[in-house]
Amino acid sequence: MENSKTQTQQATVMTPKELLNHWQGHRGLTRRTIEAFPEKEFFTHSIGGMRTYAKLIQEMLAIAGPGIKEIVDGKTAKFEEFDYQNKKENYLKAWDETTEVINEYFPKIKLEDFHKSIKTFGQYEGTVLSSIFYFIDNEIHHRGQGYVYLRSLNIEPPYFWEH
Amino acid sequence: MENSKTQTQQATVMTPKELLNHWQGHRGLTRRTIEAFPEKEFFTHSIGGMRTYAKLIQEMLAIAGPGIKEIVDGKTAKFEEFDYQNKKENYLKAWDETTEVINEYFPKIKLEDFHKSIKTFGQYEGTVLSSIFYFIDNEIHHRGQGYVYLRSLNIEPPYFWEH
Repeated sequence: MENSKTQTQQATVMTPKELLNHWQGHRGLTRRTIEAFPEKEFFTHSIGGMRTYAKLIQEMLAIAGPGIKEIVDGKTAKFEEFDYQNKKENYLKAWDETTEVINEYFPKIKLEDFHKSIKTFGQYEGTVLSSIFYFIDNEIHHRGQGYVYLRSLNIEPPYFWEH
Repeated sequence: MENSKTQTQQATVMTPKELLNHWQGHRGLTRRTIEAFPEKEFFTHSIGGMRTYAKLIQEMLAIAGPGIKEIVDGKTAKFEEFDYQNKKENYLKAWDETTEVINEYFPKIKLEDFHKSIKTFGQYEGTVLSSIFYFIDNEIHHRGQGYVYLRSLNIEPPYFWEH
């Protein structure tokens, strides 16, 4: 009984729906960051030998959709960055398509599977939960870098708090 | 019965202990990022008119400890950045002290309170859970910026995955 009560109370920490909203909230902010880049600099600007923001977004796109599909389907995903033909609009389109993929697949994760061990893309060991957090945190990390790129171009990035 | 089962299953998404570990894992990586900065550039280097990494770390220190205390005590915290006398070692010391504060206070959060509405520092509205995520995500965001600073100084930042 005591155990059961503890379990039920732990339910209050985070629900799947909240985790999905947390992820999509961040993805909305990242989308606004893509929009803030001038077409040219999105593909050319970099600092300290780092990847362009387009390349960082390519990585995020290569992770999010295939990653959530892998979590649900159980089939090892291939890490593959796609060619969006150097057009920002194609990135935004792919971003929105990924939003739909996540909304479709995420609710299919069984509640009891969030702590299941997996190896995403055949190499990153963790649980379903830690993998999803890695996807999110990696995006926040690189988006923060995009903010520096924007600032160095004298462009005001979107407001961080408001996601 | 059905409801109770659903609640119990949601317990598997994230436990308080996991959220604490998630936070402290990120804080460990941020600490390594502070260490990676040369003493001088920690206080002087910036890009695009942004704050120095020392200033960004001051903000994180002003948020984390007082923020978690506020969540537990219920007393509005004052947002206040402290003077660490321009010595990196003082920042690291304050970082480690904050680690202890978080470890002491976090387990005092009542399970049923994670979804309680609060206004941290008297102005940021959210729940206990969303506030803690904001603390973490703000840190990831600014740490990502520190990575750009390090790269622009030709210094290899700590490996991101390994936190």
